[in-house]
Amino acid sequence: MAEARDAAVTGAAVTPPLGRNRARGELGGGTQASQRLLAYSDALLSIIATVMILPVAHTKIQPDQKFNESVQQLLATKIAVYLMTFLIVTVAWAAHVRLFQVIELIDDVLALLNLACMMIITFLPYSFSLMASFPDVSFGIFMFSSCSVIIGLIQAMIVLYSFHHPYLLNHQIQVSDNQAFYKSHILKIILRGPTLSFFAAIFSFFFIPLSYVFLGLVIFFPHLGHLTKWFKSKVLGQEEEMPLESFTFYLSEPLSKERVEAFSDGVYAIVATLLILDICEDNVPDAKEFREKYHGNLIKALSDYGPNFLAYFGSFVTIGLLWFVHHSLFLHVTKATRLMGVLNTLSLAFIGGLPLAYQLTSEFAEKSHNEIEAIQVSCVTIFFASIFQFSIWTAALFHERETLHPFARYGGKEHAFMFAKLALYPCISLATFFLTCILSELSTAIFHVMQIIIPFAFLVLRILVRISLVVFKSLSRPRNNVPEEEEACLSPAETLS
Amino acid sequence: MAEARDAAVTGAAVTPPLGRNRARGELGGGTQASQRLLAYSDALLSIIATVMILPVAHTKIQPDQKFNESVQQLLATKIAVYLMTFLIVTVAWAAHVRLFQVIELIDDVLALLNLACMMIITFLPYSFSLMASFPDVSFGIFMFSSCSVIIGLIQAMIVLYSFHHPYLLNHQIQVSDNQAFYKSHILKIILRGPTLSFFAAIFSFFFIPLSYVFLGLVIFFPHLGHLTKWFKSKVLGQEEEMPLESFTFYLSEPLSKERVEAFSDGVYAIVATLLILDICEDNVPDAKEFREKYHGNLIKALSDYGPNFLAYFGSFVTIGLLWFVHHSLFLHVTKATRLMGVLNTLSLAFIGGLPLAYQLTSEFAEKSHNEIEAIQVSCVTIFFASIFQFSIWTAALFHERETLHPFARYGGKEHAFMFAKLALYPCISLATFFLTCILSELSTAIFHVMQIIIPFAFLVLRILVRISLVVFKSLSRPRNNVPEEEEACLSPAETLS
Repeated sequence: MAEARDAAVTGAAVTPPLGRNRARGELGGGTQASQRLLAYSDALLSIIATVMILPVAHTKIQPDQKFNESVQQLLATKIAVYLMTFLIVTVAWAAHVRLFQVIELIDDVLALLNLACMMIITFLPYSFSLMASFPDVSFGIFMFSSCSVIIGLIQAMIVLYSFHHPYLLNHQIQVSDNQAFYKSHILKIILRGPTLSFFAAIFSFFFIPLSYVFLGLVIFFPHLGHLTKWFKSKVLGQEEEMPLESFTFYLSEPLSKERVEAFSDGVYAIVATLLILDICEDNVPDAKEFREKYHGNLIKALSDYGPNFLAYFGSFVTIGLLWFVHHSLFLHVTKATRLMGVLNTLSLAFIGGLPLAYQLTSEFAEKSHNEIEAIQVSCVTIFFASIFQFSIWTAALFHERETLHPFARYGGKEHAFMFAKLALYPCISLATFFLTCILSELSTAIFHVMQIIIPFAFLVLRILVRISLVVFKSLSRPRNNVPEEEEACLSPAETLS
Repeated sequence: MAEARDAAVTGAAVTPPLGRNRARGELGGGTQASQRLLAYSDALLSIIATVMILPVAHTKIQPDQKFNESVQQLLATKIAVYLMTFLIVTVAWAAHVRLFQVIELIDDVLALLNLACMMIITFLPYSFSLMASFPDVSFGIFMFSSCSVIIGLIQAMIVLYSFHHPYLLNHQIQVSDNQAFYKSHILKIILRGPTLSFFAAIFSFFFIPLSYVFLGLVIFFPHLGHLTKWFKSKVLGQEEEMPLESFTFYLSEPLSKERVEAFSDGVYAIVATLLILDICEDNVPDAKEFREKYHGNLIKALSDYGPNFLAYFGSFVTIGLLWFVHHSLFLHVTKATRLMGVLNTLSLAFIGGLPLAYQLTSEFAEKSHNEIEAIQVSCVTIFFASIFQFSIWTAALFHERETLHPFARYGGKEHAFMFAKLALYPCISLATFFLTCILSELSTAIFHVMQIIIPFAFLVLRILVRISLVVFKSLSRPRNNVPEEEEACLSPAETLS
């Protein structure tokens, strides 16, 4: 032990001349697999993406106060800020994914640069909400634009550094002859947004509307570029070859499946626990009030918070099960595309809204004027979150040979089972929505029954699929003797005919 | 697409009789790799472990108010609750790791059971803080004990279910002859805690002190069992063989390295962003105040929040770099042991305290009575967080043949470099602490200089190690001509002599 300590104190001086190349071959020499750095970045980004739901969720509305216009407007602004932040952070995340599909190994310098980049990205939600709160003040726009300029510059440094140390790059580029071309191509794409933001930052002091035009261009530029390219190839017949699989901005561009999963996991986890954060902080009764108001009866004191606990368990169960569906879905997926990523983002954005919806439900659980509205908002949020999950699946089916496991394609048992799982939440949330319209008196009861039923529905679904499988087998066996293997490959229509 | 929708609607009915075993071989038939389920559980648990720092961090202290006794006592209680919650959740996490080292594959039922288990675990911090706030009220103890009973029961169900479907278990148990013995051994260990909690729950209504005795026993029971076992083997000469590598509670028991990393990443990520959550919610100036008090000058309005931003960047940088050290450390580790897990937990517990320390610094940045105290608390927190990281490394060195990569063992370049990295934070935080004692007038300045210097110190360290490597090479070459490969294996003492 003493030796070890000595080595620590004398530090660098002890370093014996270890063969550099030998060490590098074994991941030493500073080169490391990037996996964990990316997992950490995903965790940071998913937390930041969902953070702007907090100001929305903490907007206080009195139970006896009708949703009047000013409250509605305040909520609408905050929700818009939340959605925009979510989209901005996911765009930054997608750029990060794209970048680290090109760079496969990291070293200490890249890790530190990446941390610096993360620091500025985590500041984006705040600077955006400043800009949204004071749209006519130049400093807000300047701050937001500067952040995105800095992010772009750091990413450019990352690219330059890794092209200077080509062993960090992915194999395709490493063996290629014209690395210089790749470098300029990637740099051009990365610096496009920051350049526009730079102009936005400058014009924020002279003519604010122009700044917004520049910021808007950041979003539309890739699509404009696409249109012109498409136009060129269709009308003028000029076919331009795409140099890389990434950095194309096509909807079929591959997106690292692991990172989509990691980012989604982060969002689901933080959203599932958002309500318990509040509960832990606010719902421990005050010692003085406890003695005076409740006469030392803890059950009585806690029953006041009852709706909050119910809201917590309700939101945890719903988010847990939506995660479960997402998890089942991605077990069948072999390759994620950009389109699936976009749909996944939309689904996650609604999932981020769930704690808000449930908080509304818990705040209005005591018979109030807005009870039905709150429950209907919850149903609509759940519906959209689940319908976008469903659309990921349909998007995957478009190119099922590339994107899905063979056994999950059309006509397999897993295929039907997956469809049933994905259809469960949209159907039930729609049914609840219409039920509350008809039986408005019982809306809270209906909603809570729904919450309790759904976990069991998943288990029942399993049994149902098995039973129908047995029934179907016994019905179809006598009729034809096609071997099972072949039968599984038939499309549902053929099997039924 | 219409076809796909139809399939979804008709759902189970379409299911063709796909060969069950064939599908299972390919992960179909409901059996899945458990990786993502565990990652999600880790994310949930790491968020929950750190959540009780929020009530501590949000304790309001007036800048001109001295740390009087009542504030100190309040803070001390809250900090104790935070530390205890953190330890309880990490114990639950370690039990979860142990369980899923035995169960290697999952299916839908296990996934749902696991989600149910997670839901109750996320409720532990709250029920514990209730118990801590009202130690003499039976309902608080009853609630906490019931939670741990339910967790134990769900885990027992998971074990029973997976032993009923042995293909889910790990290979060692799957091929073993006496599965029944393993089953009872594991169940016995899992149900030990819940049984004690069950008695605690019952006695909470009759005689509260006895409840606490039972809850205390939950912690000491494994160690008591160890002592008796050790006593038996030493004194009576009875050698009992350990049936499994997991479930031994020895310090050398293996702990899944991936899960230690995932849990740590979660804690680092949530702690790094805790301050921005507050900033996003509280530090957007109110529109009315903005116009009246600051006359539309945003820079002026924001400069009030200046210390908060500084605190955020300071804490993000510190936590980012501590993560970086942790990441470098675990790159060299091949196998994590229970002892390393415990040290890692202690390090993480102090890291969870960092936002609090930084919030103190930012609140007292305006010259107040407590400025020096706040900065010294920060230094001490950083010191302990980093010194426990250091001790993970020394613990790994004890069994370096099993736990470390060959090139990171004594005497390698990577070894020295790792030591330098690990020693940086303890040294600098100690130095800052003593500097603030001497130059108490300049403490804030010293602290901020430290924050800015450290990231560069990491880069300088890299250069220093390289230079000393070159110097050392040129010095040692003429003296002896040992081939590099061999030289790398010598211990530092030998190389220096």
